[in-house]
Amino acid sequence: MNASPLSLPQRSVKPRREGLTVVIDNGAPVGAFQDAIASAAYGIDLVKFGWGTALVTPRLEEKMACLEQYGIGYFFGGTLFEKFVAQDLAEDYFEFCQRYGCDYLEVSDGTIHLPAERKAQLITRAAKEFTVLSEVGYKDAERSAALSGDQWVSFIEQDFAAGASLVVTEARESGRSGICDPSGQPRFSVIEQIIDSGADCRQLVFEAPTKELQAFFVTRLGSDVNLGNIAPGDVIGLETLRLGLRSDTLVHFELERYQERKIRIGA
Amino acid sequence: MNASPLSLPQRSVKPRREGLTVVIDNGAPVGAFQDAIASAAYGIDLVKFGWGTALVTPRLEEKMACLEQYGIGYFFGGTLFEKFVAQDLAEDYFEFCQRYGCDYLEVSDGTIHLPAERKAQLITRAAKEFTVLSEVGYKDAERSAALSGDQWVSFIEQDFAAGASLVVTEARESGRSGICDPSGQPRFSVIEQIIDSGADCRQLVFEAPTKELQAFFVTRLGSDVNLGNIAPGDVIGLETLRLGLRSDTLVHFELERYQERKIRIGA
Amino acid sequence: MNASPLSLPQRSVKPRREGLTVVIDNGAPVGAFQDAIASAAYGIDLVKFGWGTALVTPRLEEKMACLEQYGIGYFFGGTLFEKFVAQDLAEDYFEFCQRYGCDYLEVSDGTIHLPAERKAQLITRAAKEFTVLSEVGYKDAERSAALSGDQWVSFIEQDFAAGASLVVTEARESGRSGICDPSGQPRFSVIEQIIDSGADCRQLVFEAPTKELQAFFVTRLGSDVNLGNIAPGDVIGLETLRLGLRSDTLVHFELERYQERKIRIGA
Repeated sequence: MNASPLSLPQRSVKPRREGLTVVIDNGAPVGAFQDAIASAAYGIDLVKFGWGTALVTPRLEEKMACLEQYGIGYFFGGTLFEKFVAQDLAEDYFEFCQRYGCDYLEVSDGTIHLPAERKAQLITRAAKEFTVLSEVGYKDAERSAALSGDQWVSFIEQDFAAGASLVVTEARESGRSGICDPSGQPRFSVIEQIIDSGADCRQLVFEAPTKELQAFFVTRLGSDVNLGNIAPGDVIGLETLRLGLRSDTLVHFELERYQERKIRIGA
Repeated sequence: MNASPLSLPQRSVKPRREGLTVVIDNGAPVGAFQDAIASAAYGIDLVKFGWGTALVTPRLEEKMACLEQYGIGYFFGGTLFEKFVAQDLAEDYFEFCQRYGCDYLEVSDGTIHLPAERKAQLITRAAKEFTVLSEVGYKDAERSAALSGDQWVSFIEQDFAAGASLVVTEARESGRSGICDPSGQPRFSVIEQIIDSGADCRQLVFEAPTKELQAFFVTRLGSDVNLGNIAPGDVIGLETLRLGLRSDTLVHFELERYQERKIRIGA
Repeated sequence: MNASPLSLPQRSVKPRREGLTVVIDNGAPVGAFQDAIASAAYGIDLVKFGWGTALVTPRLEEKMACLEQYGIGYFFGGTLFEKFVAQDLAEDYFEFCQRYGCDYLEVSDGTIHLPAERKAQLITRAAKEFTVLSEVGYKDAERSAALSGDQWVSFIEQDFAAGASLVVTEARESGRSGICDPSGQPRFSVIEQIIDSGADCRQLVFEAPTKELQAFFVTRLGSDVNLGNIAPGDVIGLETLRLGLRSDTLVHFELERYQERKIRIGA
């Protein structure tokens, strides 16, 4: 943060327990990846190597070394987990993640059909060796649209019960399925129902690949909301949204600050 | 320009008085930024550090040093100005810009409500120390849609009268508000009214973040139209549009060239 | 390919006769370009310097040297060819390409009107010195929409007959004209007609700048379909689509694998 006399909202610092930014690497060139991490490390808590890119990235170890240097954890996208599971290779997947030094592991059923008990079983198994992020919601827009708010809440609860440390709400890289509708709008009533359910938002990560979604969640849940699927080059932009330094959240924070000031002075 | 026997339209060279390309930095990684500048410096006249990114960019000085090396001026996005003004810190903002060696300063009211007299006052004040770019148009699409062509013309005139050296027409980073409608189409009649008003187009900068907008303004106002909110990686692409080397403007320039040839030979 | 116990579809390796990935450079900064090539060279067969960017790229030779280092061929976008032709400078264009050491050359009429015989003549002439890629389809969406499947097939046949080694189906950088409709959807019936015509798909290159188009062609024509207009940063992502390692193609390949297994075991 460069010095200025501005009043800005509180923003946690690393190592963070809330306000996490989870970056997605879509297979960026190695130098570009290292540059993005080195330029904004203070704002990056975790990196996901998106879907199965880990398998076809020649210099994956260089990316991982860079993350270790900056104390940033990493894991592979849930789709890679699902690919192994689809081929009855779940145990091989846990080994694969160990071999690459992952401390985190994502369990998801965004593409394949996984009975609830099997998902829970896999979360519990993975949690013995990894910090587990589990994902709720489907990549297919129609299948996602059929998920009611009650189901979202119950799936989230099941995943925590099974041993997940963080539950991620799906929105893909495009922000057009899962917790969003096909037009890219957040499914407001589902989100309100999740918040009202008493879930600890500090343990939820909302995938928010677009500026619109990021601004929505910051405005609704504050500067220190956990957000995922952030592009490496968007981390600085996201910090400005968290702090009301971009048009999309500026008015919200200036109103809030103005009202706090009124409260402080007893107005 | 690499040598070829092609006939191409005139394109001014740096230091330019018209045909300016104003690049926006959205918080790009430092190495990527330096690479983009070094690879296309001949086509970059000014760089705007978008909205409040300057405040949360750890290695901002490295970016500025790069610009100085290439003789490229820089300033901070109008939203940062508005943030300071919203907190009654206008004078602090001028100091802030001085501290960072800005020769340029953007005055805008794209997000906050600023009475016309106050905006003029701030432009006049800023112009004592900086070359002032003032912006006309709102980031909110509805508020922008309510601005008539007459109002655009009058706001532009007021800003020049107050001391602005360049007036920028708002289009955001998405090209979907300000001088554009929410579908991304330029507001043709407003633009024609501005052009007809007698404003010196060499003192206007049209924000044109998309290829479609860039092609529109080049076709309408020529190779040496001033364009803003250009992504660092789009500078080379924009040069091709300015020269009729991309499909979107090729036909326009070949027709023009063809007609000029007819005029020259008296046909 | 990093080691894993997964069963994945066959994917050819370089030098490839099918499964080509043709990358488009839109005027990327030099360092970013080199980084992208070095990070994913195994998945890049050819690079097109998009439209007329070659003419306004100051350090073009550095990009070319990088490609030569990795054994990747290159050529200039068809629009540059058309620009020279529009100015009656076809022979100068062939010289221009020679001077830059191009082994490949694209002949197209995506923007200018070129009578069929003239296009064939130019292909035949170019094929004396270069490996010719010819393009079918127009950049203008309306003109493209008016092209029937019969015409596509016949234009493709004419280009091969004239000496083209590869025929490219136009989709622009946006995937919204040529073989696609303005909404970005592939023109399914045209594509089926081309496939049914008996054309050797190993000699066709389908421009597929979006993930949706890439997934469509991989699903329809297999892992080793030739695809063009791939962004430098999307090569790794495309490899995952080719191998069923991303949601968009995962189900397709798991079903296929499952059925192959059934066939193998006589089920």
